[in-house]
Amino acid sequence: MRTKVSDTTPELLAKRVAAAQGKSPADVVVRNVQILDVFGGGFTTGDIAIVGDVIVGVPEAYSGTQEIDGTHLFAVPGFIDSHVHIESSLMTPVRFQESVLPRGTTTAFWDPHEVANVLGHLGVRWALDSCRDLLMDVFVLVPSCVPATDMETSGAHLTADDLLEYRNEKGVLGLAEFMNVPGVLFGCPEVAQKLTTYAGTIRDGHSPMLRGRDLNAYLCAGIHGCHESTTAEEAREKMRKGMHVLIREGSCAKDAHALLSLVTPYSSAVMALCSDDRNPLDVAAEGHIDHIIDIGLQKGLNAEDLFRAASFGAARSYGLFDRGVIAPGYLADVCLVKQKRPGTWAEGFEVVHVFKKGRKVELAELSHFAQELGTRTRPKTTKRNINTVALASEKFRLSVPSSVTGKTVMCRTIGLIPKKIITENLVFEMSVGGDGVVAADVSRDILKIAVVERHHKTGNVGLGLVKGFQLRQGAIALSIGHDSHNITVVGCDDASIIAAVDAVKRCDGGIVVVDAGGKVLAQLPLPIAGLMTDASPVEVAEHLRALKAAARQIGCTLDEPFLQLSFLALPVIPSLKITDKGLVDVNAFAFTSVFVEGNG
Amino acid sequence: MRTKVSDTTPELLAKRVAAAQGKSPADVVVRNVQILDVFGGGFTTGDIAIVGDVIVGVPEAYSGTQEIDGTHLFAVPGFIDSHVHIESSLMTPVRFQESVLPRGTTTAFWDPHEVANVLGHLGVRWALDSCRDLLMDVFVLVPSCVPATDMETSGAHLTADDLLEYRNEKGVLGLAEFMNVPGVLFGCPEVAQKLTTYAGTIRDGHSPMLRGRDLNAYLCAGIHGCHESTTAEEAREKMRKGMHVLIREGSCAKDAHALLSLVTPYSSAVMALCSDDRNPLDVAAEGHIDHIIDIGLQKGLNAEDLFRAASFGAARSYGLFDRGVIAPGYLADVCLVKQKRPGTWAEGFEVVHVFKKGRKVELAELSHFAQELGTRTRPKTTKRNINTVALASEKFRLSVPSSVTGKTVMCRTIGLIPKKIITENLVFEMSVGGDGVVAADVSRDILKIAVVERHHKTGNVGLGLVKGFQLRQGAIALSIGHDSHNITVVGCDDASIIAAVDAVKRCDGGIVVVDAGGKVLAQLPLPIAGLMTDASPVEVAEHLRALKAAARQIGCTLDEPFLQLSFLALPVIPSLKITDKGLVDVNAFAFTSVFVEGNG
Repeated sequence: MRTKVSDTTPELLAKRVAAAQGKSPADVVVRNVQILDVFGGGFTTGDIAIVGDVIVGVPEAYSGTQEIDGTHLFAVPGFIDSHVHIESSLMTPVRFQESVLPRGTTTAFWDPHEVANVLGHLGVRWALDSCRDLLMDVFVLVPSCVPATDMETSGAHLTADDLLEYRNEKGVLGLAEFMNVPGVLFGCPEVAQKLTTYAGTIRDGHSPMLRGRDLNAYLCAGIHGCHESTTAEEAREKMRKGMHVLIREGSCAKDAHALLSLVTPYSSAVMALCSDDRNPLDVAAEGHIDHIIDIGLQKGLNAEDLFRAASFGAARSYGLFDRGVIAPGYLADVCLVKQKRPGTWAEGFEVVHVFKKGRKVELAELSHFAQELGTRTRPKTTKRNINTVALASEKFRLSVPSSVTGKTVMCRTIGLIPKKIITENLVFEMSVGGDGVVAADVSRDILKIAVVERHHKTGNVGLGLVKGFQLRQGAIALSIGHDSHNITVVGCDDASIIAAVDAVKRCDGGIVVVDAGGKVLAQLPLPIAGLMTDASPVEVAEHLRALKAAARQIGCTLDEPFLQLSFLALPVIPSLKITDKGLVDVNAFAFTSVFVEGNG
Repeated sequence: MRTKVSDTTPELLAKRVAAAQGKSPADVVVRNVQILDVFGGGFTTGDIAIVGDVIVGVPEAYSGTQEIDGTHLFAVPGFIDSHVHIESSLMTPVRFQESVLPRGTTTAFWDPHEVANVLGHLGVRWALDSCRDLLMDVFVLVPSCVPATDMETSGAHLTADDLLEYRNEKGVLGLAEFMNVPGVLFGCPEVAQKLTTYAGTIRDGHSPMLRGRDLNAYLCAGIHGCHESTTAEEAREKMRKGMHVLIREGSCAKDAHALLSLVTPYSSAVMALCSDDRNPLDVAAEGHIDHIIDIGLQKGLNAEDLFRAASFGAARSYGLFDRGVIAPGYLADVCLVKQKRPGTWAEGFEVVHVFKKGRKVELAELSHFAQELGTRTRPKTTKRNINTVALASEKFRLSVPSSVTGKTVMCRTIGLIPKKIITENLVFEMSVGGDGVVAADVSRDILKIAVVERHHKTGNVGLGLVKGFQLRQGAIALSIGHDSHNITVVGCDDASIIAAVDAVKRCDGGIVVVDAGGKVLAQLPLPIAGLMTDASPVEVAEHLRALKAAARQIGCTLDEPFLQLSFLALPVIPSLKITDKGLVDVNAFAFTSVFVEGNG
């Protein structure tokens, strides 16, 4: 638990007390601003006086070395991204900061699950180290499920004993999203050991569509919150069962519209907002946590409740008592915002200024700082990101079992749902070629998907079919494939698929789009664990725009083809998923065959 | 920070999970009860399943080894007394439990400030030890101000270094009510050191009538909450400044009526209720925390908000994430209550059953347990509670200064305010006797008050005048005198006063009422530090009834003469107070003279 001004020294205390009493000027004063009261509700007009990183007075009149006129502005506590994988920004933490801090996100809770799945201890250590020099606060929740399941090949395996190392480390809030729900329900010993190891800290949850007695059982393990609710009914049940519901609006998984109406005067103290996985293109175009608030405002919800959940709700739900309140003794994490149309919140708001620990946030400074750091932000490893054996083209052939003798076969197909990371488990009748092979059927948008193991040169290739990308030619591949981050590729034919995988291999990790001839139309190299780059948000956004244009060029109609593709490898999210070891029926938590017929 | 099921072992987890899934029976099931949802608001009808000390399921149907029909009942989380001096119950913790646990108070935050002022380290250690074997949870906040000021003689002095010993001890939540407000505002080095020592924990506040920039300055020290607001306006300012407001309803200080309207859907997550100082007579007659809720209900306030503040609000405000919610994984601290008139809360409620850590509370069991313990609950010390020198009667004479030559003199007089612990600073014209002495004027209800030092045989006697007791004869004395707990006595003449002090001395601490002849009309010995007894709540209540009857017999019209008298010695509560060293002008934080004239 972090409490107010825990850095107090007698000298600092004396300085703050004198300024609070008006006996000496504050460092910064925001004059005549409407200040949100997250304890009692409503806005109070007055001044905010700041000394160093702490607020020393509201709302009495103060004078300061630097004064800012807050007339017509509102002051709300800095926003908190209550669950994020910074890796999904495709950027390093310092570049993530550059992207989200100017949008008002002054604190984030990071589960470095992706980099941990690739680099293990080295990844977790790098994550902790990367947060130390930031202006924004990034707290780490230690990845609980590396790998997420044993149905895939990850770069590393972290046992309960491995996790223990981080338990009491500064900046660690607890154990991150415990996605091995079956492991809890079936009493898996290692699961019990992990939860026991982190008893007394926050053990965060991950329980999409878990309901009823099974949800109760999961909560008995001490599970704290969940960011995986997709319907209001599901989220409402979780709240009723004492679970902190985090409303997520990522680039791919978008739950804000379904869930924001649950944010009320009563609940706003125990709810939070999060991005989970959101790319810098969307942050630049729409926003980050500010965007979720904006959606709520435009739905006609109450500004006090939304701003409270976005700051105080998240802070208090995770044991941070030092922020989320604009009042003396709290960290000076303050957003000055204005209503898009004065007099009403209904048309949304804009962030005008952000103060983080009393410092006015300037984008240019953040960019400069990141640029100065350059490649020094990379993990210290000489290992290649892509470690694959040479793969024969046969590896990508989807051959029917010998028991199948007809000209067609019923095939399980992953049914993509745009803007969701859950999928449908579909079955289609597919033609069997003369060589006993099932190929993609572009006319019906049934494409081939493959996951190529990239960590240990196992040569594993998982094969399957997917509907929803609508490619007309070529392939898309990337070294991101939640959560083990093998190479995930979707394509219209084997040659394109192999060309795309080779292109990812050539840049030692990244995102590529190739055409029917195997020509690379666009690519973004990701030199850090095959997940991230140290390029700037602007550069990454440019690359993403080019990649999206290339994906459209080969026929893809999805808003977010890359994230959606990467989540098809995640076997803890229902219903049908694929790993390097094969197709997974998530509801049964077991492997299944592409072929419904001839399957034993 | 305490999180859910922090005692998890793989075996316990398996047992809970199986019961939660309905695969094995729960230990206890409350069937068909209306369960308060402190996250989202409202009541949900269903079952509560309990295994051991933890709730494993709501609201699905369950079966259990023991089943209780909850039809027409409501289940709310166990109440929390968010600030209490158990010493003011006049009983030991195990007897306090017997008094309040059956009323639904399942957790208390104890500031053992009184026993610490008498016994120092021995007192704090005794307090911590006394809580270990209770069924109810009593957390300790370490007394921050022993003594409260240097204007009095206490039994002990605890420095910042002394306090350090308890900082990380199990069951310690932080530093208790930091009442040395001037010490913060004027930058007293020892004050700064104490606050620094407890940085990173909760540092609770005590700031009656503190407002504006001075309140800001006080909060800059990291101060957390305050139970000393007496008007809604004052409390509202504190909330606006991010301070947790605890609404107090003690035996003497009664703020519920003034403050309860501040409990709203929005604020109920950050507010709490407390008793501070409440005797077992009032607990038996009216209730404890349940009584405060009842006052709110009868004022027409919302039941969901009141019950939430009384449990969840207190728990979360003090970093307890393991209770205050009726949901799986939380402690099974549950009150089953019924509306006094079915269908409405407006006529109040009654506690029907209380579960503490899954155990159904039975008064007889609690009494039996306390009886078995007997005198083993006493601190291990052979020191007498009353250490005074023989006092000449001259010590009690209020002689005017030689500069006073007239027949009358203007005298500062403590103006008692019934049911408040703040006082008025009054001035009356008093006759000067032939011997140059001012005596009590019973006809105008201006009585003599004295504080006799009892710890170190200093022979100190502080003398003054007080208006408000309306004694017609005799005296009242007790070895309780906040916070240094010297002997406090009020009387109509010196002989009665001396007789009352002698009676307190004879029983080595206690409360006595004597008549004009010095005869003891009633007394309650307090063998533990001169503050507490190990008698049962019923016995203590009987004694108090007899003492009150005796006080009425000698003319006293106050509801609560003993607590009111004891608080007249507390020089951190405005306006005019008295210690063994003399009269104190609290607003000036300095000694003053009884005599306005002839005073320099």
